[in-house]
Amino acid sequence: MSVELRKHIEEIVPLTDEEFEFINNHFKSKSLKKHQYLIQEDELVKHIYFVINGLLKATFTDANGKEYIIQFAMENWWISDFQAFYNNVKSIINISCLQNVELLYISKENLNKICSESHKMEHFFRVKNSSGYVALQQRILSLLTNSPKESFEQFSQQYPQLLQRVSKTIIAAYLGISRETLSRLSDKL
Amino acid sequence: MSVELRKHIEEIVPLTDEEFEFINNHFKSKSLKKHQYLIQEDELVKHIYFVINGLLKATFTDANGKEYIIQFAMENWWISDFQAFYNNVKSIINISCLQNVELLYISKENLNKICSESHKMEHFFRVKNSSGYVALQQRILSLLTNSPKESFEQFSQQYPQLLQRVSKTIIAAYLGISRETLSRLSDKL
Repeated sequence: MSVELRKHIEEIVPLTDEEFEFINNHFKSKSLKKHQYLIQEDELVKHIYFVINGLLKATFTDANGKEYIIQFAMENWWISDFQAFYNNVKSIINISCLQNVELLYISKENLNKICSESHKMEHFFRVKNSSGYVALQQRILSLLTNSPKESFEQFSQQYPQLLQRVSKTIIAAYLGISRETLSRLSDKL
Repeated sequence: MSVELRKHIEEIVPLTDEEFEFINNHFKSKSLKKHQYLIQEDELVKHIYFVINGLLKATFTDANGKEYIIQFAMENWWISDFQAFYNNVKSIINISCLQNVELLYISKENLNKICSESHKMEHFFRVKNSSGYVALQQRILSLLTNSPKESFEQFSQQYPQLLQRVSKTIIAAYLGISRETLSRLSDKL
């Protein structure tokens, strides 16, 4: 039984012990070490993952070998290549561990099963998906409009924990700014 | 009764006449003319909107008055300032009509009501939210990594109808490239 998963779901919907047991039975667990890959480019993606412990990054590598950071995931975050997962296509991204990681994961078949058998879980994932949508819309706005200074300030406010746990090189790649610019900005914090 | 809304929902879940009537009763309709605003900066956002007919743009204006295009919406698309709507905060964007528009709209209270009373609708919106999330993730990837040429080609493939219906100046603002660059690229199509 995962205490973390139950607590996470119950932030949105209360569950009875029986309900949680039913849900929990459809998840499996997985551990990965720092630097290992969870998802690699060109693979089919059969699962979505819930982070119990640790830190991951989702990256895209362009034709010239340049790496872009699409997303981080840490405790209580969900991660996958959602495009590949929902559309049954091969992944175009890599997801790897920045720290040792403990995960729970669920297949699409079981995700649909728990949502169809439990209206509460359908509600939970509707709400999570809408929060995810809002977070991505903020990221788009920030990519379109912000100066490096604004991007960094917004990141620091939104994800203070990440600032402590992720190297400056990686934060710079996430924000799309140079390592030097980031150092200058973070010295002023 | 909106035939368009029923057809749109039934692409994901089949409904009985009674179920659709119940859902439909929670929507109201609204018409706006070209150039009119649906949502203005600094307003609270009480509704999400389903487009029956017409075309809209969602924009952000920065401190220097420069306008960025965040999203379009046309027939069968949902639009709102989702951040303001879900988080009960004031809108930081504007949504206005590029053509005359007919919309259906629903309040958050009624959205939650139809989702809570109808598991099918909770499912419908879970699926729509996940598709929306995937579309935004693709946009982020494209903003991070694509050259103007790639951005334009991707846009042309993804939204061929928009290419016909939106001016080049507006498409250039959406892609974050100059009007001149876009003209050069679209001449080669």
